[in-house]
Formats: sequence, structure tokens, C-alpha cells
Amino acid sequence: MDTSDTTPSRRKFLQQTGLAGAGLALAAPLQLFANTNETTTNQIMYDMTKNIKTRGYAAKDNSGKLSPWEFERRAVGDNDILIDIKYASICHSDIHQMKGDWGKQPYPQVPGHEIAGIVAAVGKNVTKFKVGDRAGVGCMVDSCMTCESCTHGEEHFCDHGATVNTYGSPDKTSPSGITQGGYATNIVVRDHFAVHIPAHISLQEAAPLLCAGITTYSPLVNANFKIGDKVGVAGIGGLGHLAVKLAVSKGAEVYAFTTSADKVKDILGFGAKEVIVVDDAAKFKPYKKKLDYMISTIPAQFDLASYASVVKPGGHFTQVGMPVGFELTLNNLGLASTRVNFNASLIGGIPQTQEVVHYCADNKIVPQIQIIKASEINDTWVKVLNKQARYRYVIDAATF
Amino acid sequence: MDTSDTTPSRRKFLQQTGLAGAGLALAAPLQLFANTNETTTNQIMYDMTKNIKTRGYAAKDNSGKLSPWEFERRAVGDNDILIDIKYASICHSDIHQMKGDWGKQPYPQVPGHEIAGIVAAVGKNVTKFKVGDRAGVGCMVDSCMTCESCTHGEEHFCDHGATVNTYGSPDKTSPSGITQGGYATNIVVRDHFAVHIPAHISLQEAAPLLCAGITTYSPLVNANFKIGDKVGVAGIGGLGHLAVKLAVSKGAEVYAFTTSADKVKDILGFGAKEVIVVDDAAKFKPYKKKLDYMISTIPAQFDLASYASVVKPGGHFTQVGMPVGFELTLNNLGLASTRVNFNASLIGGIPQTQEVVHYCADNKIVPQIQIIKASEINDTWVKVLNKQARYRYVIDAATF
Ligand SMILES: [Zn+2]
Ligand SMILES: [Zn+2]
Ligand SMILES: [Zn+2]
Ligand SMILES: [Zn+2]
Repeated sequence: MDTSDTTPSRRKFLQQTGLAGAGLALAAPLQLFANTNETTTNQIMYDMTKNIKTRGYAAKDNSGKLSPWEFERRAVGDNDILIDIKYASICHSDIHQMKGDWGKQPYPQVPGHEIAGIVAAVGKNVTKFKVGDRAGVGCMVDSCMTCESCTHGEEHFCDHGATVNTYGSPDKTSPSGITQGGYATNIVVRDHFAVHIPAHISLQEAAPLLCAGITTYSPLVNANFKIGDKVGVAGIGGLGHLAVKLAVSKGAEVYAFTTSADKVKDILGFGAKEVIVVDDAAKFKPYKKKLDYMISTIPAQFDLASYASVVKPGGHFTQVGMPVGFELTLNNLGLASTRVNFNASLIGGIPQTQEVVHYCADNKIVPQIQIIKASEINDTWVKVLNKQARYRYVIDAATF
Repeated sequence: MDTSDTTPSRRKFLQQTGLAGAGLALAAPLQLFANTNETTTNQIMYDMTKNIKTRGYAAKDNSGKLSPWEFERRAVGDNDILIDIKYASICHSDIHQMKGDWGKQPYPQVPGHEIAGIVAAVGKNVTKFKVGDRAGVGCMVDSCMTCESCTHGEEHFCDHGATVNTYGSPDKTSPSGITQGGYATNIVVRDHFAVHIPAHISLQEAAPLLCAGITTYSPLVNANFKIGDKVGVAGIGGLGHLAVKLAVSKGAEVYAFTTSADKVKDILGFGAKEVIVVDDAAKFKPYKKKLDYMISTIPAQFDLASYASVVKPGGHFTQVGMPVGFELTLNNLGLASTRVNFNASLIGGIPQTQEVVHYCADNKIVPQIQIIKASEINDTWVKVLNKQARYRYVIDAATF
């Protein structure tokens, strides 16, 4: 064996063991820290080797009806946190997926990807959270974490296709074989995929930011519009009403397009400059080529070319609503005549999800919500489908 | 009456009458000039008050078969020119429209919007052309000429919806009630909608530039890519092979995507750096996120998200092929994961149509053509549908 300290191989060896030693040295205090928090905050002591029992509401088939279900989460792993869910809000996507609109589903399946609660346990490697922290989970719970997209804050676009959705994704670690969502009393999730919810926003108002918030915030920020620019928002539901508030907050002059005449007063209250009730294609004419950018949250087939006609030639139009089968049929000739660039956007990465939660808390941008009990979920889903939501229903998890 | 030359109203009056006088003075010489050319160039003398007789090939129904037809063009109006057609080339759109793929059609209808010939007569107001000039006509023959789009060289996007297509548009001035295209011995067209064909390109090679050329040139120029950028071209037929040549000529590194393995050698000959034979979706993988821009000329439904996946996130993708019903169904989730901006493009305005003809003549960019006789049109259409075109069929108008 070479005993010289000056040889590259030995220096390398020492560096490696030095790093390894530091890692081992750090591990113990972190684990102690976690234990300390668990004991000082009157939380239940969890056996980190055992699955976690939970209660929730699950779809048992594609009827669009949910019913109570008791199931288990995986044991809290070294990189996991356990969140006691306080609120979970209802996204149109929950309904689409449970009904099989986006493909055949495994059942029972618990929907819900707008989740807010309190950290109840942390794995031994976890430094991002401690027990008692306020935390949120959105549309994904894991990814490869090593590819270019994952290491650049775009875990939802994992280059290895390893993004794991919050519910319905195959998941060997889950006792039920698939991920189960947030319509439940708790969730176990890899720490990286949870975000902090600061103290100056309520958990029930933070929950909708985890999908509706990030889904509209991400393209609005990426659109990079200037203060005073005219921004259109089409479809003013859970996502759309947040898009209006966010665009207004970022300095845009907002033009809201809705098919619900009875929403006009609300939408002006959200800060829109004008509300256009689209009951006829002629309603677009006065706005032809006037807007700098437009976002559509319409979760169904719609006449893209007509909506895009209000955007200036060369401008961009983003679709964030996901229609049945994810399929959107457009008139290519109509789109050509608008000269508008169409793109689609899908949630956002974890760093940007954390950003939108902070941004909304700091700027007092909160969704307009209605709290419901678990037993009201089925009736509420019908209301969502009938466009009666004003504007986001939030389930009180204490009622599961 | 005020006799002072210094009053503003009188100065204005003199200026106005002065301009009017100049206009009147000019009118006579121009008219003489036109007459002079007609008599000095051994052309037939046309009675400018009478309809013009012509022979061509027309669709009589939606069978996709054409047959000989004798019909009349309108008399040559004050702003019109009469062109003796020498060549008309075959565009996939001709077939789509005659078969009713884009809506029910009036018949008989003469297709053809890639037209090259010699000016045979000019109306008394015409200054743009003189008898004997080489001229081309593309996809449109009139528009309002007063709106913002028309006065800015975008007559194909006339804000008054008054763009008149070269064939099949309602047209009160036409004896048959609709515009009739270029599969014929002559055409009467408003001077503004014809372009000059310079002497250093043959008429038969210029014809395809009037649709295939401008349709690909316009988005390629608008894409504003830099020298050395990677540009994709999908669908290498009449439009696509010109797109490859044009993009190469503009300095791009061109990646051509075709479903026809037997075109590879040709396409490399057009200057493409790589040719990808798309016989499996996996063929896109090595090019994922690699290209700066992409243009698709595929005139049918295709998997947009897979093709767009080769473009860098934030890049643009232009669709110029028009599928059946103009409808394109895209997977919104797939498009979201590419983060690519999709747009559609439709021909180009008259100034840019003139530009592409000059650009191609100057840079020796010519379509690869095969000359056919009128009697071969029906068989040739079948070849076009069977992807056997290599790469543009041009009809010799002397055979009508
Ligand atoms: Zn959602
Ligand atoms: Zn990844
Ligand atoms: Zn054409
Ligand atoms: Zn016009």
C-alpha cells in the first residue's frame, strides 16, 4: 500500500472518507433533532417501520362517486415525511381521472392533489422539514431526481418519465400498489415533494395553490408580460379566478372570458378590467388582436381559434385545462389566421410551487373558497361539473 | 373670392388641384404605353369588353377526377391582367379541395394555384405589368385592399374577410360564379395579385414557388433562426423539399423527417444534414429537445407531440400542411411536456410571394419537377396521394 500523502490516489481516498465521515457525523444530530421535535410537540410517536393507517374517500369504480375507505400508507422512509392532512381541495382533474376520462384507472383510488397539513413525522435523513411544520403537497410525489429536468426544478418533466403523480400512479412502496391522494387524513411523501406553507396564509386557502395556483402561476410567469400588458384569462373557475388575481397582481390589465354571466361581478372584484360573457362568437370581435397574452383554463374541448383571435399576431396562448382524453381538436386554418403561438402547460416544478405559495402569502392572493365536509364530496363534484363552484371547494379533513 | 395666395385655404386648394392635374396628365401616357406594347409584341388583340374564352380541366363532382372543360374568364378590367398560362403545378390542396375534404364545393371547378405564364393583355390602369412580361399567380386573386392587413402586405389575412381564393371562391365577376384556377390556358387577375417572374428562372420551375415556395418560405423567414441553428422539416413532399432547400440556403443545419425511406438519398442531395425515417415513434428519441425550430408540411392528422418533442423547450413549431377539415387533434398533455409553441401558417402575402420568387431565382433554389400532360392529371393525382411525387408535378398548359 502506498503510504505517501502526496499521491493523487491517496488524497482522493482521504477526501472520500473525509466526506463519508462528515456524512455519518451529521446523520446522528439530524435524527436526534427529529426525535426531539416529535417528543416536544405532543405528537403521536410513530413506529417508523410500520405502515401508516389512514381514512379517506375513494373511487371504487368510474361512476364518479366516492365512498369512505380505510387504507394504509407506506412506513415513513428515511427521506419521507408524514403529513397530518388538515385540508384537501377539489380540482376538476380529480373528477376527470376518477371517471376514467384520461384512461382506465385502478380502483380503489383516492383523489386529491391540493393538500395542506402539519408534519407529524420525519425520516432520519430529512432536513427540509421538522415535526410541526405547515406543509403542502401538490400533483406529484416523486421523480428520478437525477436527470437534467429533475435537477433543474422541473420534476414534472422528468427525462426518465419517472414522475409519480400524487394519485393513481403505480407505486411499489404503496400498500395498495398505487399512489393515493389527499382526500384522506394523512399522507407519506418524499420530503422534496412537499413545500412549506408560511404562517401568514391559512392552510385552507393555501391548499388550492398546490395545483390551481402553480398551474396558472407557472405559465403567467413564463409569459414574461410587462406591467400594463393586456392579459386574457378564459374560463373563470378554480384555476381561472386565481389566474385573474395573479395576473392583476403582476401588473396586467386583465380581460376575463367566461360563459357564466352570473360571475361578472365576482370577476370584476378579483381585479379584472373587463369581463366578456362568451354567449356568441361575435363577442370576441371587439377584442380581435388586442391582447398581449392569453391563458385558458377551460377543461374541455373549445374553439381555440376564436379565443386566440383576441391575441395580437405573434403573441402566445397557453392552455392549462386538460380536456377529456387530453385531446384538443383545433382548426388549423383558423389558428393560422390568428398567427398566435399555442402552447400547453402542466403544473410546475417544486421550486416554482414553493415560490407561488410564498408569493400568494406575501401578496395576499388567496382563492375564494367554500369549506365542505367529506360527506358532501359527491354532491360537490356534481356542482363542479355544473360550473357552480365559487370558486374552490375545500374539504375539511377532520370530517373523513 | 379670396385672391391672396398666402391664405392656407387657397394654398391647400392649389395643392389639391395640382395633384389632381398631375394624375390626369399621367393617365393618358400610361394607357398609350399599354396599347403600344400590345401592338408591338405580336400578341392577339383582345376586345377588353368581352369575356375571355379558355380551356382547362375541371372537377365536375367530388370524385377526385378531372375532365376537360371550356369556360370563360371575365373581360380584362381596368386593373386586370390576362395571363397566357404556360405551366400550372399540382398542389396537394387541389386534391383536398376538389374532393370536398375542406367543405362542400361548387362544380365545375378548375383547381390550380401555382401558375406561371406570359402577360397577354393589361387593363388601362395597370402599371405593374406590360404585355410580354413573365408573371405568376398563387393562392389568391383579390382582397379588400384597404384594411390594415391588406395595406401591410398580408392580403391573405384581410380583416374584412374579403380574400378571394384562386379557385372555388364566390366571385360575381366570374361568368361561372366562382373563381376558376390555373389548370387552364389563361387567367384574368387583378394586377396586384400577380407577381413578376425574373428571367433567370424557368416558368416551369417558378410555378411551384407560388404556393409551395411561399408557404414554406414565409414561416421560415418569420422563425428568424440564426445561421447554424438546427431546423427540422417534417413531411418531405412538394412543400417539404422546398422547405429543406430554403432552410439550408438560409444557413440552417436541416434535419428532415420523412416516412418514405426511398427519399433519403434525394433529401441529402437537397442539403439536409440528417434524414430521419419515421417508421417508429422511438426514432424521435435521439433528437429530443435538440432542434431550434421545426416546420411540418404533413397534410394529414399526425402525432404533433411526438414530432414537437425534438424541438427545444420554448422553441416554435409551425404547421403548414392542412389536414382534412382543417382539423388537427393534438394531445395537450404531450404538447405540455414538450413546452413547444405551436403555430399554423397559411401561404404568405403578395410582397413576400414576390420576394420568394426573386430569392429562389437569385439563389438557384428550384423545385425538383416532373412535367406532365393535361391528360395525365388524374393518374398523377393518384400518385400524389400515394406519396409518389418526386417532388412536384407541373402541367404543360399547351396540352389543355
Ligand atoms: Zn389539479
Ligand atoms: Zn428525472
Ligand atoms: Zn397549394
Ligand atoms: Zn383587407
